[in-house]
Amino acid sequence: MTSPRDESDDATCRWAVRLEYDGSRFVGWQRQASGRSIQDVLEAATARLAAGRPVPSIVAGRTDAGVHAAGQVAHFDLPRAASERLTGARLRDALNFHMKPDPVAVLCAARVDASFSARFSAIRRVYRYRILNRPARPALEAERAWHIRQPLDASAMQAAAAILVGRHDFTSFRASSCQAKSPVRTLDRLDVARDGETVTLHAEARSFLHHQIRNLAGTLKLVGDHRWSVDDVAVALAARDRSRAGPTAPPQGLTLLAVDYPEDPFR
Amino acid sequence: MTSPRDESDDATCRWAVRLEYDGSRFVGWQRQASGRSIQDVLEAATARLAAGRPVPSIVAGRTDAGVHAAGQVAHFDLPRAASERLTGARLRDALNFHMKPDPVAVLCAARVDASFSARFSAIRRVYRYRILNRPARPALEAERAWHIRQPLDASAMQAAAAILVGRHDFTSFRASSCQAKSPVRTLDRLDVARDGETVTLHAEARSFLHHQIRNLAGTLKLVGDHRWSVDDVAVALAARDRSRAGPTAPPQGLTLLAVDYPEDPFR
Repeated sequence: MTSPRDESDDATCRWAVRLEYDGSRFVGWQRQASGRSIQDVLEAATARLAAGRPVPSIVAGRTDAGVHAAGQVAHFDLPRAASERLTGARLRDALNFHMKPDPVAVLCAARVDASFSARFSAIRRVYRYRILNRPARPALEAERAWHIRQPLDASAMQAAAAILVGRHDFTSFRASSCQAKSPVRTLDRLDVARDGETVTLHAEARSFLHHQIRNLAGTLKLVGDHRWSVDDVAVALAARDRSRAGPTAPPQGLTLLAVDYPEDPFR
Repeated sequence: MTSPRDESDDATCRWAVRLEYDGSRFVGWQRQASGRSIQDVLEAATARLAAGRPVPSIVAGRTDAGVHAAGQVAHFDLPRAASERLTGARLRDALNFHMKPDPVAVLCAARVDASFSARFSAIRRVYRYRILNRPARPALEAERAWHIRQPLDASAMQAAAAILVGRHDFTSFRASSCQAKSPVRTLDRLDVARDGETVTLHAEARSFLHHQIRNLAGTLKLVGDHRWSVDDVAVALAARDRSRAGPTAPPQGLTLLAVDYPEDPFR
């Protein structure tokens, strides 16, 4: 006979993982018929810890094909029996073993409260968009940066970035496929800085719209080219019309660096 | 009738190029029957500028399979007729076009005096060896770093590195296949520094022996593990016996960063 306390236990335990991956080898985070996704790789590994049963995962940022992560966060529920044999370090090592040789790695893993959601508990997403700004095409950074030959004016880009920071209707910078209910987002940070041949954008917000950072990067590039003024960016933002902003920058420049929560689940 | 001055002109002009490449895709710099080399890629491109005739190239550092370059230097002689239509920028762009999509890029090109040798005129080679020191295997840096799980003591490694700097007989750190006449080299710099999960070695010398930096890295790793003391490294150096030093570190951590000349050919 089991005690009432045992009966009240759930059959699963929730785990969170912090992930690094090379997005150039995948069709994106989400499962798709067209090829392998990072979700496929992770869930093939988690299923092996659940006697082959599917273990659905929820992720903080559903990155597109070609977009990288250095600090993605996901959560999933493992059977309680399996969980009790695990520590964070053991789960990390087991998943890294099973995901080999795919360029997806669990940096850390931790048991979390069942109320934790990698997606809905997140209070901040931090992204970097990297531009390689030089005449020669990239060899070492081919899949890691947007290559732009003509010199960009990073100071002008920074001035334009400053007017995009804050709470705005970002319809002009939102993919037509974006499924978010509201186009209003609060952009907490958007910085542009040059370091030698590299121009780097840093973007932080509680959440982003689909393609928002790539559309911001594609628009700021027009300012860097002196084809657009800072005012043109203000006009594009106010227009609330995707066709009025710049093109979508390519995915390989984008990396999800970090996801923050009210309490760090990996502390 | 041609003037004596015309007759004295050579049929070729010498060019120098600075190269970046991802060594993970090649069998190394030098042509080999076992697969494609960086030399193959460059010389296939230079031959197209010489009406299909072979254009042999000489390189500053004959990197091994898997070793990268961010600032390799090579030289070659192009027919004078072709050279007269070229500028450095045009040659850079033409070679980058012909080498596409291989991860080899010409960063800059310049016409140089016929006495210039990428190999023999070099007065300094600068290499970086990067270790990713964390439990999780690398996803983004898989082909760019040596992965070591257990924490390394970078301060101990730096103390051991200090005794290797200077003019020594480096027989203990030289590949058995090394063809250099003398095992004596002057190591101008060997530094070890930690930045978060990354431990980086910087090495500078006029020239290095075959596998010297990888053998130094493999030996310093033993010090970082506290398996060897600084004195053990001194003993290994004094032994002048390859079997007394540590193992050869894997190639993917190594990058040739720069080659210096008495005058910068690309200035």
